[in-house]
Amino acid sequence: MNWLLVFIPITIALELLAADQHVLLFVTSAIAILPLAAWMGRATEQLAARMGEGVGGLLNATFGNAAELIIAISALRAGFHDVVKASIAGSIVGNILLVLGASMLAGGLRRPEQHFNAVAARSQATMLTLAAIGLILPAAYSAALGKGGSASLGALSVTISVVLLAVYCLFLVFSLMTHSALFAGTHVAEEAEGTALVPHWTIRRAATVLAGATVMIAWMSEILVGAIEPVAQESGLSKVFVGVFVVAILGNAAEHATAITAAMKNRMDLSLSIAIGSSVQVALFVAPVLVLASLFIGPFPMDLAFPIGLVLIVLLSVLITGQVAGDGRSDWLKGVLLLAVYLVFGITYFFLPDVVPQ
Amino acid sequence: MNWLLVFIPITIALELLAADQHVLLFVTSAIAILPLAAWMGRATEQLAARMGEGVGGLLNATFGNAAELIIAISALRAGFHDVVKASIAGSIVGNILLVLGASMLAGGLRRPEQHFNAVAARSQATMLTLAAIGLILPAAYSAALGKGGSASLGALSVTISVVLLAVYCLFLVFSLMTHSALFAGTHVAEEAEGTALVPHWTIRRAATVLAGATVMIAWMSEILVGAIEPVAQESGLSKVFVGVFVVAILGNAAEHATAITAAMKNRMDLSLSIAIGSSVQVALFVAPVLVLASLFIGPFPMDLAFPIGLVLIVLLSVLITGQVAGDGRSDWLKGVLLLAVYLVFGITYFFLPDVVPQ
Amino acid sequence: MNWLLVFIPITIALELLAADQHVLLFVTSAIAILPLAAWMGRATEQLAARMGEGVGGLLNATFGNAAELIIAISALRAGFHDVVKASIAGSIVGNILLVLGASMLAGGLRRPEQHFNAVAARSQATMLTLAAIGLILPAAYSAALGKGGSASLGALSVTISVVLLAVYCLFLVFSLMTHSALFAGTHVAEEAEGTALVPHWTIRRAATVLAGATVMIAWMSEILVGAIEPVAQESGLSKVFVGVFVVAILGNAAEHATAITAAMKNRMDLSLSIAIGSSVQVALFVAPVLVLASLFIGPFPMDLAFPIGLVLIVLLSVLITGQVAGDGRSDWLKGVLLLAVYLVFGITYFFLPDVVPQ
Repeated sequence: MNWLLVFIPITIALELLAADQHVLLFVTSAIAILPLAAWMGRATEQLAARMGEGVGGLLNATFGNAAELIIAISALRAGFHDVVKASIAGSIVGNILLVLGASMLAGGLRRPEQHFNAVAARSQATMLTLAAIGLILPAAYSAALGKGGSASLGALSVTISVVLLAVYCLFLVFSLMTHSALFAGTHVAEEAEGTALVPHWTIRRAATVLAGATVMIAWMSEILVGAIEPVAQESGLSKVFVGVFVVAILGNAAEHATAITAAMKNRMDLSLSIAIGSSVQVALFVAPVLVLASLFIGPFPMDLAFPIGLVLIVLLSVLITGQVAGDGRSDWLKGVLLLAVYLVFGITYFFLPDVVPQ
Repeated sequence: MNWLLVFIPITIALELLAADQHVLLFVTSAIAILPLAAWMGRATEQLAARMGEGVGGLLNATFGNAAELIIAISALRAGFHDVVKASIAGSIVGNILLVLGASMLAGGLRRPEQHFNAVAARSQATMLTLAAIGLILPAAYSAALGKGGSASLGALSVTISVVLLAVYCLFLVFSLMTHSALFAGTHVAEEAEGTALVPHWTIRRAATVLAGATVMIAWMSEILVGAIEPVAQESGLSKVFVGVFVVAILGNAAEHATAITAAMKNRMDLSLSIAIGSSVQVALFVAPVLVLASLFIGPFPMDLAFPIGLVLIVLLSVLITGQVAGDGRSDWLKGVLLLAVYLVFGITYFFLPDVVPQ
Repeated sequence: MNWLLVFIPITIALELLAADQHVLLFVTSAIAILPLAAWMGRATEQLAARMGEGVGGLLNATFGNAAELIIAISALRAGFHDVVKASIAGSIVGNILLVLGASMLAGGLRRPEQHFNAVAARSQATMLTLAAIGLILPAAYSAALGKGGSASLGALSVTISVVLLAVYCLFLVFSLMTHSALFAGTHVAEEAEGTALVPHWTIRRAATVLAGATVMIAWMSEILVGAIEPVAQESGLSKVFVGVFVVAILGNAAEHATAITAAMKNRMDLSLSIAIGSSVQVALFVAPVLVLASLFIGPFPMDLAFPIGLVLIVLLSVLITGQVAGDGRSDWLKGVLLLAVYLVFGITYFFLPDVVPQ
């Protein structure tokens, strides 16, 4: 994957020489982010491995979606709140439908049945239900009040964001401290994976890679985000479609690969932990952090009132995840079902024009 | 039940001599369909038994709701898309609430607790959730776009229908081939039932009965469908009520009897397979086939955007089915609950006037 | 808690001497209800213990939410249908989120994991789903028909109420007679609790206390309800917020204490039975009884069409309860999640102004 790093200089050259080639810029900056996100993930894991289980887990849990956070902050600074919301919803939905679906399918093609810790899976699924509720209520509030409620909607969004962040912190205490045994399958597997595949880095090296990758992702994100609007116009796709199904997939490409590989090795606990865990992190950490960050960054604050369409697909994804992950077993049909739901969402947004409030 | 066949000549005579007796025609044609659907089901089973497990299962899965499909095609040709949609929704809802509810109640009155394969039941319940999502999104799309989106709604409906049909095919591969053991309880019971109750037919006899019943059902359906509108007007009931609660029950009358009998014999796997399986078949096979068929039959194509009310009752039915069938055990209270939900739906539609967009 | 009884004379004195001190009256009458509800509960249990299991269980099931019913009837007589509906919804939501959440948290802080009878919990959760459906359909009906449907909405509400009451009666037959073994954990614990904590009363004493407490609660309720509107105006909170989060908590204060104490003693079956059981009772007994009672009491009949916002929070609560209670185990994170959902609901209604149709 390292050869994809060549797209960094290509993107920079294009930006300097042919800034009006929006589609090209969009594609090259998007590809350039892929290896950077992978390096960032690796550096985070290496740092985490050096820090001991508690702090390490915390690091992983906080920086695991850093690429996503950086892209979203670029969009926030540009005032593209609709793109930020679309990519948050797309990331929640994509992780549990596309990543988990592909994992269950890939694993299920090799074995008739795979098993995982149902208690841990249900904990995470319930966290997602809370997250969905945290999106539904501001949207309903906003729909009930119309434009008259925009002032109090801001206060409501900030307050709910604080609650969601607090619950996320408590979830970390639960999964890393008081009930870490439930998630043990994951940790052991992760460690085994880490030792087997790559040699240990020094802390200095990990920190340097992390810092470098962060700076470069931030740069590429600015270019990517700047290209979304013209690309959407030229391609006839809606900005929301680009946000939900393109930007969101980019930020999670590294997770995709790891989760599918783990499922093929019959390490379903690790696979689920990555797929559902990433959605939990985006919903209960990235989204509220962005709402709070928007008070200081960007032209105007972002609220938690997502468009009804996005709230709907998040809710439906969470419902089917609870059904699929609740019994501790998976087969290829479950993978097909999750992918089919993702496809139905994609088709609907593909046909949705941009002018409509989605 | 065979004596009900006498209603075929009665209906034909009425149609010729007293075509304005709509209520009478509606009732007699409806009753005439009951024994025909039963004969059709028997012929399909006999053919299936002759064809070996794979092809036989496929036959059962494809022609199991043939009576329903024929009635719907008659309505499609008459341009009664609202009746078609109402009878599809009514059939999904009726199978999982009325048939499964009555089965669980009848079985539960004889035994304190009955058991069934929870994995198979959950597979089917998850299929239904996908089907519900496949109805929710076009409805939401249509609501978001209003009349402006009717062109793209057609394309959206066709695309989603293709996805649903593909998933249904994969489900057949799953339940008949790769994971047929999960559904073994059903097959064994079905076979045992077949041998015990009726002698084996020759293929020729089965094929002749199937063809004859199909032709007669098609005829009776034309008369039935033609009577819906005047009957609705004369009785003051809405066309949707007639579609959801009368037409849908007719198409599934044979399944009702078989599922309840199976439950009383403590063959809950067979009972659930018929009840939930029929809903899955209507939602993922009959509905998309009708959308695709409407491109060639009838005055204008039918889309997948069901009225909000119908989408709502399908979604709620699917939710409660997941809850009731997910744990592999049933008792009479579960039956009562499903029947009560069906009753609440019926009461609401009974009070709903026809003029309102439902 | 008995010393709180001093608030009865204080409230009466205030009512006579300073009837315009609404906030003060609201607070003192509210506090006065707490010990009265506790005495009422104790008297009911004592009577129930004397009556044998069947009739006793029936008594408990009927008078368990008597305080709530009395407050609601006061509001009904005053024509405050919005407050009645808000307190019904608030009671359903509060019992399963606040009471169950606090119980799971309190119990989970002492033990890593607690267990309860999943079959009984799922039965009750499915009852709640039926109740939610019984609220969703009239609300959807009312939304579809607008003001034109108010006449038939009344008939619809009465009919659905009768269905809900019938199901509740059947649920009593199930839990007290045919399947009482499922709920055995609860009964044994309750009895043990009863014997250990308080001496047995005579029937005469229990009946006298019950009658006295009922009269006093009715009096205090009249004062409380009369103060709601001015208090809402003076505090700037909406009447719905006061109904959902203040009045509802009052009526259930006794249950709160008992359920949390039971959870701390690791009697999770009793704890769940109180928390979810109270919600079931409010949804399937108190609410329909109030609809039927409103035909005779108060200025005009109350329908079952709750405001969309209340229907939404009931539905979401029921969904997350099914997820949390379905697997027969609890930990502190589950408690936190339920409390967080309650908090998110509270925040949203806190920010909601009164003028909006909620």
